[in-house]
Amino acid sequence: MQYRAEINVMPIKALLDPQGKAVENSMKNLNLSEINNVRIGKHISLSIEAKDEETAKEKVETACKKLLSNPVMEYYEYEIYKDVK
Amino acid sequence: MQYRAEINVMPIKALLDPQGKAVENSMKNLNLSEINNVRIGKHISLSIEAKDEETAKEKVETACKKLLSNPVMEYYEYEIYKDVK
Repeated sequence: MQYRAEINVMPIKALLDPQGKAVENSMKNLNLSEINNVRIGKHISLSIEAKDEETAKEKVETACKKLLSNPVMEYYEYEIYKDVK
Repeated sequence: MQYRAEINVMPIKALLDPQGKAVENSMKNLNLSEINNVRIGKHISLSIEAKDEETAKEKVETACKKLLSNPVMEYYEYEIYKDVK
């Protein structure tokens, strides 16, 4: 079975996010001062071949922990969908 | 009213995504060869102060077009939520 995972890897909330801060400041120059609390992270989308959703989830967990995120600075969240083709 | 936008800025599907390709190759070294079609983009989360959802949406559109995405190489998608505090 083919699954699709949509993963967000974001800077931990307690940490400053300098990239987000820079974007937030630039918003003011675009007359968008109503926008704040900007935080920027990564979005990863991938396909998984697995026998069931549980197995797919395990694989995504391993990928997030070992490769996609740095747990000292980032947290991750994801959703898994059945891929219909 | 306070709104929250969750924005994904992803490389256009017709384009090669070298960062995603690199991660896909690394998956093999982690015994995760079942994972493929990896694409990596940005995830941006931000707050908007606006009188209604329509106005919030317009502001997010402007921010995406003028600042957050490069339309030659990237597309964006977003969801807007009412922020309950």
